[in-house]
Amino acid sequence: MSKFWEDYPDITEELEDITGIIVKNVKSSEKEFDEAISPLVNAGGKMLRPAFLLLSAKFGEYDKDKMHNLGAAIEMMHMATLVHDDVVDESKLRRGVETVQHKYSKEYAVYIGDFLFCQCFIMLSGFDYSTENLRDISKAISKICMGEIRQYNMRYLKNTSLRKYIKVISGKTAALFSISFYTGAKESKCDEKTSKLLGRVGYYIGMAFQIIDDLLDYSGDSYKLGKNAQSDLIKGYYTLPLIYAMAEDRENRISTILDNSSLNNEDIKEINILVNEFKGIEKAQNLANMYTKKAFDYIEKLPECESKQVIKHVAQKLLNRNF
Amino acid sequence: MSKFWEDYPDITEELEDITGIIVKNVKSSEKEFDEAISPLVNAGGKMLRPAFLLLSAKFGEYDKDKMHNLGAAIEMMHMATLVHDDVVDESKLRRGVETVQHKYSKEYAVYIGDFLFCQCFIMLSGFDYSTENLRDISKAISKICMGEIRQYNMRYLKNTSLRKYIKVISGKTAALFSISFYTGAKESKCDEKTSKLLGRVGYYIGMAFQIIDDLLDYSGDSYKLGKNAQSDLIKGYYTLPLIYAMAEDRENRISTILDNSSLNNEDIKEINILVNEFKGIEKAQNLANMYTKKAFDYIEKLPECESKQVIKHVAQKLLNRNF
Repeated sequence: MSKFWEDYPDITEELEDITGIIVKNVKSSEKEFDEAISPLVNAGGKMLRPAFLLLSAKFGEYDKDKMHNLGAAIEMMHMATLVHDDVVDESKLRRGVETVQHKYSKEYAVYIGDFLFCQCFIMLSGFDYSTENLRDISKAISKICMGEIRQYNMRYLKNTSLRKYIKVISGKTAALFSISFYTGAKESKCDEKTSKLLGRVGYYIGMAFQIIDDLLDYSGDSYKLGKNAQSDLIKGYYTLPLIYAMAEDRENRISTILDNSSLNNEDIKEINILVNEFKGIEKAQNLANMYTKKAFDYIEKLPECESKQVIKHVAQKLLNRNF
Repeated sequence: MSKFWEDYPDITEELEDITGIIVKNVKSSEKEFDEAISPLVNAGGKMLRPAFLLLSAKFGEYDKDKMHNLGAAIEMMHMATLVHDDVVDESKLRRGVETVQHKYSKEYAVYIGDFLFCQCFIMLSGFDYSTENLRDISKAISKICMGEIRQYNMRYLKNTSLRKYIKVISGKTAALFSISFYTGAKESKCDEKTSKLLGRVGYYIGMAFQIIDDLLDYSGDSYKLGKNAQSDLIKGYYTLPLIYAMAEDRENRISTILDNSSLNNEDIKEINILVNEFKGIEKAQNLANMYTKKAFDYIEKLPECESKQVIKHVAQKLLNRNF
């Protein structure tokens, strides 16, 4: 379990229970399958989506079993998308652990992801959830696929606009954050107003979270993140700090470096310096702050309860991270 | 639409309606997405799974809208698994049409498959189906993944047994045939006995169908099948005719050829001759006949109705094909 939740022993306990449910639901009769999936389950991610689902559900009539099952399904769905992302990105590491596609093969990772998707839908249809919420969850995943494909199509395009970037991260990250909050509330019989408010909180936290994730690629310590340094840039994913910097770079100095057929360490260092010089990181941080502020504005509108305070603290911690 | 259904104008019309539903449900705001998916929808497959669903549903209280929607979802699920299979197999052609992974990229095909999965679950949760049936369908897809992974793990293994082969095709083909029959009946309020009978019919048709498919690789005309000749063999998938032949080949003549680092045309020709010599095709045909007979035995047990006759004719046509 990630240390992220260490101040909240109750949530830690619930997330551990959810991890147990995931372990049970990814068990299969194929030994190799289990060996490939088990490190994913135990990789110690922050489990933000199920945690947000639980916190949101506590605004209504909290049904532990139902929520833990739903939380497990949502985390599995997220795991499935990660496994497939790693196929596309040819990533070697994820959360500091070797990826399925690198350890086994791309082929294996395709089926492992599909298997996780299916097991997740088996779980979703095995509990008494409203079909409306099932549809909303499916729609969120569909949005993730669209976001990923947009991002993939935009690789190496130097004229990526802020608008397009926003569209991508809104699909690939904010959609599932938002639906986790919203579904938690809806399935706990919160009224539509509170559920929608929570959905918005999730959306804005998701937007800020992704921008900060992209920003850390230019300012953070990649070892702490369990990622390869500047892997996004090398793979042609031009994220917000670079987009902002390129807009200011009238002599096209960044663009000229990007034209190199492959980027060496010197190129990357140079780009990092230029992105800083053109205030790409600063501006990206400002946009993240704007989304963070929106998230807090909506949190304030929520009915008073313990969960509201936890969401507030967690959002603060999450959006001020350098890890 | 495939010519397979030309003797049944009513079914053809219904399948065309289902195709229309699929077209509507795979539409997205991404132009490139649509361009990649549209040839899949119009590739003129036999649409066996939705057709069997309809035929089975006609044993009960037939609800056209409900069944067409469900049929579209099942075909989309099948399409998703095909797209991902092509990623794994690096196939260039499918149903005579260039595959997504070959035309675009593996990466693209991974997301296209995921998108199809999601759209299909959106549809499934959008109609008033029993969650029990949703779970059954998810389980069938999960079985397909397991079947595919088993098959993938068995590549290049010369000691593949009949038992293992049966396990693979039972998961990768028969499971979805069976569930199409079963769900059609259940969702049309057939009693459990009839529904289960129909499920078995589907299972045995699926088994015979897959064996014949594998057999045609050794005896059929690959142009007519829209596949590359002996692509399975080249990729290390050792199917039933080869498994049977190798069991008889005491001097390991086939095995010696398979040890070559890559198979050239001469090798393939030689293997085909040997598989024939050791009666691999004949024996595979016998096993297909055994499953076909089982299918017909169960068909006979079904209550009399028009649909029963159609299923009988179609099974005959399907299991006597050389196309």
